[in-house]
Parts: sequence; structure tokens; C-alpha cells
Amino acid sequence: MTLPRVVLASASPRRRELLTPFFPGLVVESPRVDEASSPSESPHELVERLALAKARYGASRHPRALVIGADTVVVLDGEILGKPSSRREVVDMLARLSGRWHQVITGLALVFEEKELVSRAVTEVHFAHLPQEEIEFYAATGEPMDKAGAYGIQGMGGLFVSEIRGSYSNVVGLPLRLLYLLMEKMGWDIKDWMAVGFGESRDPSFREVKA
Amino acid sequence: MTLPRVVLASASPRRRELLTPFFPGLVVESPRVDEASSPSESPHELVERLALAKARYGASRHPRALVIGADTVVVLDGEILGKPSSRREVVDMLARLSGRWHQVITGLALVFEEKELVSRAVTEVHFAHLPQEEIEFYAATGEPMDKAGAYGIQGMGGLFVSEIRGSYSNVVGLPLRLLYLLMEKMGWDIKDWMAVGFGESRDPSFREVKA
Repeated sequence: MTLPRVVLASASPRRRELLTPFFPGLVVESPRVDEASSPSESPHELVERLALAKARYGASRHPRALVIGADTVVVLDGEILGKPSSRREVVDMLARLSGRWHQVITGLALVFEEKELVSRAVTEVHFAHLPQEEIEFYAATGEPMDKAGAYGIQGMGGLFVSEIRGSYSNVVGLPLRLLYLLMEKMGWDIKDWMAVGFGESRDPSFREVKA
Repeated sequence: MTLPRVVLASASPRRRELLTPFFPGLVVESPRVDEASSPSESPHELVERLALAKARYGASRHPRALVIGADTVVVLDGEILGKPSSRREVVDMLARLSGRWHQVITGLALVFEEKELVSRAVTEVHFAHLPQEEIEFYAATGEPMDKAGAYGIQGMGGLFVSEIRGSYSNVVGLPLRLLYLLMEKMGWDIKDWMAVGFGESRDPSFREVKA
């Protein structure tokens, strides 16, 4: 079954990077979605709702495409850590994360024609103990300011993470194994969707396998 | 204490990518090191020995630099899985990894003047169950051919990894938290080595923190 056009309904450059090898013709659509959370909602419910809202937004602009939506939060003691709005807040968040485990949770949604699927992936992340002066130093670099939880694992913040447990790609922004499972549930197996990305395989038996 | 020139003694483009944000002036030196393992050597011993040999090679070319050497292996049931040399071997390796945990082990060495430090990081990686036809398909794409363990976590192989436990950056090729710890042991704290990479911080208090 041939894959339709694939749209990523997310402005995140890291998500785009993760997906491009699989979907070279990937279209990116920045979703306009109200990201406010409601007080009664758990972090899991929030990320699933927002991922689906983003995917639906993408589908409204690309009605015949397969649309992928995602939303990620950082959770400590059941509380969502948003993007810090001041240096003070950066320092407070990092002091709370220091020496402890927290969760990175991504909601992932697929929308194609009438079908909608949504799920989530949770990765546990452990921070090393951060001396106060390192926290101050990191805060002063400016890196934490636009990051949920006040750190970027792919920047300098990667130095503070001593261990993770769970999906590797989730921490980058899009859990690939979960994407695979949702694609399968929608009826595309790996040969369908891979064929788009890796159709130029040098290996002639590629076609046989696909047949 | 001002950091000297930093040299990465490794040809891996992923290691270079991981380090460049921290060391913008990073020099890369492809080490000429015999990577053959001896039968009496454990995987841990092997990666530490090779990481140190690479770092020493780098130091011989750049005597006043701080040299980083690294070597990574994939280990299943205590046995090192090298780079497959045929399609048959790719299929066999992936069938063995399917549905099981294995280890990614990186030896990391620092050499600076008379000082040498070496250590290692271990990350546990779990593969989903792979149907035979997916293994054949993946083998046919050619991706696994030049990869230790016959998969690339940052390529299509990322779809097969359901969970990891341990260092996140180790799986990419260089365990950053371990690097931080070795740097500290050599006498450079984060403010010394970060200052090189993030000296252009927009935040004026950056200098105060460093003082």
C-alpha cells in the first residue's frame, strides 16, 4: 500500500530531523493550537490532547495526507515544568531537578482521512547532583530559557543527565518505536513506509523483499 | 584555568557532532590504531585500551592539546558484535538481537601532557521483536552493513529500539556525563571548559559567574 504525503504538524526542528530520514518528502506545518492546560488534566491527558489537536490542525490544511502530531512535557513530582520565564525560574527548576529522576512524556497522534490514533511514551531521566555554581553558570548561558524543564539534553544540558530509562528518541522529541506501532495499527507496515525513504537502496533484492 | 586546544582522536562524525557545541574549535584527528582484540580481553578492557590508544595517538600529533579518545562496541551475551561482512551476517545478528537486551559500551580516554585518564560507560539497549521479513527488509536497505551490531540507532534502526537504560549520549557515541567527570578529575570544572564554547553568551552576568 503506497504511503500518502506525510505531514509533521510541529514546529520542532528536532522532530523534523528525526523524521526526515524516513520521509524525505516530509512537509512541515506549524500548528496553531492553544497549548494551555486545564487544571483537571493529567500530564498524559494533556500531551495526548495537544498531539491530536496538532495533527487535526495539520489534517485540516492537508486533507489527504498522513499527519503526525506530537507534544512533549517535562514532569517532576506529577507537575509539568514549562518553559522558564526568568533567570530566577531557571535556577529554581534546575535546583529541583538536581540529583533526581523526572519524566519526559510525549503524546503522539496520527490522523489520516477518517482515522485518528493517539498514544504516548514516557522516558525517565536522571539528573546528576548539580552544584549551585554550575546551576548559576548554566542559567547564565541562556540555553535553558526556551526549554521545557529549563534544560536541553542535546545542548550543554546533556552533561547533567546521568541516565535515562525508556525511549531514546522520545527524549529527542519523537518516540520512533511508538510511531512505528501506530503506523502499523493504521495499516502500513515497515515496508510500505520505508520504501519511500529508502527506495534508492543500492541492493537489487530490495524489490523482491518488498513484493 | 584556560582550556588548551581540544582534539578528538576519532573519525566518527557523530562524536564530532556531540562535542562541537562544547568545543567550537575542536580538532579532529583520525587515529591509526590496530583495533584487533585479544582473546583474553573482556569488552570493557578492549574499549578502554583502544580509547587510550586513540587518545595517545592524538597526543603524539598534538603534544600540547587535551586529547579525547573513544571506542564503542555492541555486546550480546558477553560477545562483541562487530561490523557484519555479509548480508547473511546482518540477518543473523539482527535475529539474535530481536526481542532482547544487549549492551553498548564506550571506552573514553583523556590525555593531556603527562596525565592519562580512562573509563567506560555501559548502556543497556532493548530491541523489539523483529519479524523475519522486517529483518530481511532492513538488511536489504544496506544501512546495517557498516554498523557494529548491524544497526544504526540514529537511522532506520532507531525504529527497532524499544527502550534504553543508561547514558543517552553513549548510544550516540560519546558519554557526555562521563566526559564531564573525567574533565573534572583532570582539574577543569565546567566553567573552564564551557567558557570556550559559550563565551559569546548574550547574558552579561556570564562573566560575574565565571569570576
